[in-house]
Amino acid sequence: MSRLDSAIRRLQAQRACLDWAVGEIAGQPGPVLELGLGNGRSYDHLRARLPGREIFVFERKVAAHPDCVPDDQHLLLGDFNDSLPGALARIGARAVFAHCDIGSGDAVLTAALAAFVGPALAPLLAPGAVVAADQALDIPGCREVALPADVGLGRYHLYRNSSH
Amino acid sequence: MSRLDSAIRRLQAQRACLDWAVGEIAGQPGPVLELGLGNGRSYDHLRARLPGREIFVFERKVAAHPDCVPDDQHLLLGDFNDSLPGALARIGARAVFAHCDIGSGDAVLTAALAAFVGPALAPLLAPGAVVAADQALDIPGCREVALPADVGLGRYHLYRNSSH
Repeated sequence: MSRLDSAIRRLQAQRACLDWAVGEIAGQPGPVLELGLGNGRSYDHLRARLPGREIFVFERKVAAHPDCVPDDQHLLLGDFNDSLPGALARIGARAVFAHCDIGSGDAVLTAALAAFVGPALAPLLAPGAVVAADQALDIPGCREVALPADVGLGRYHLYRNSSH
Repeated sequence: MSRLDSAIRRLQAQRACLDWAVGEIAGQPGPVLELGLGNGRSYDHLRARLPGREIFVFERKVAAHPDCVPDDQHLLLGDFNDSLPGALARIGARAVFAHCDIGSGDAVLTAALAAFVGPALAPLLAPGAVVAADQALDIPGCREVALPADVGLGRYHLYRNSSH
C-alpha cells in the first residue's frame, strides 16, 4: 500500500469514526472536545455535522487554515500537559464526545502523548461519552468499542465511558 | 462538504488519475516527472506502481518524509523557473508522464505557477505523453482528456501531448 493509499484510508477511517460519534451523541446535550487541531479538517467536519454544538479545541500551536480556527473562548492553547488538567473549569461541563488526533511523525513523542492523554481525558468525559482517537488510548473508566464495518482494525480507535 | 470530505475526494481523484496514467504508459519506455514532491505521497504511489521506471522530481525545497525522497540524480531542486527550462539535458529523454501537484494555499501564487508550468513543461514531453495536474494547465501541443468516471469535473486535470 502506498502512502497515498494509506492517507486515503486513514482519512476515510477518521470520517467514519467521526460520523459514528455524531450519531451516538444525537440528542445528548454537552460539549465536544477536539484534541489536536492540525490543519483543521476534522474540526471543520465536526462543526458542519454538529451545528450549534460547542466544540472546544486543544492545540499546542495553531497552524490550521484561518477558516478552521475556533474563537478564543473555544481554543485551549498550549501543551496538553498544561491545558488538559484544568480544562473542566474552563469548559464548564463534561463532554459527550472527544476526538483525539494526536499522532505525529515522531513515534516516541506520539506514544508519550497518548500515555498522558488517556488518563488526563477521563475526568473531562460525561457518563456514556464516546471517544474517537488516531492512537490507542488507555482511558480509565472507558472500554473499547467496535469500529464501523468499513474501518480496518487499528486504523482508528473508539471508546465509550462506562463509568458514572 | 467539509474540508475532510474535500481532502478525501481530492486524494481519491489524484489516485484515480495517477492510476489511469500508469495504465496509459504501460509498455512505453521513458521517464516520469513529478512536479512538486510535497509530503511525498504521490511520489511513493508512482514508484510503487511503476517499479523500475525512472521518476524525476522537481521540488523547491524538500519537506517530504525521508522515505519518500528520491536520490540526488532524480531530484531537481529549486524554483521551477530555474529547474524546468534546462531539465531535458539533465533527464536525457522526454517524459511519457508528468504529474503536477503544484497548488498551495495561496491562490495568486498557484495561478502564476500554473501559468509558468504549462509552457515550460511542453518541451519535456514525448509525443503521446500524458499529464495529470491538480491545476488547469495550458500546455502547448496538449489537449485535455476526459477524467476517470469516478473523478468530479475540475477536481483534477488530464492532458495528452498530441504534437510530434
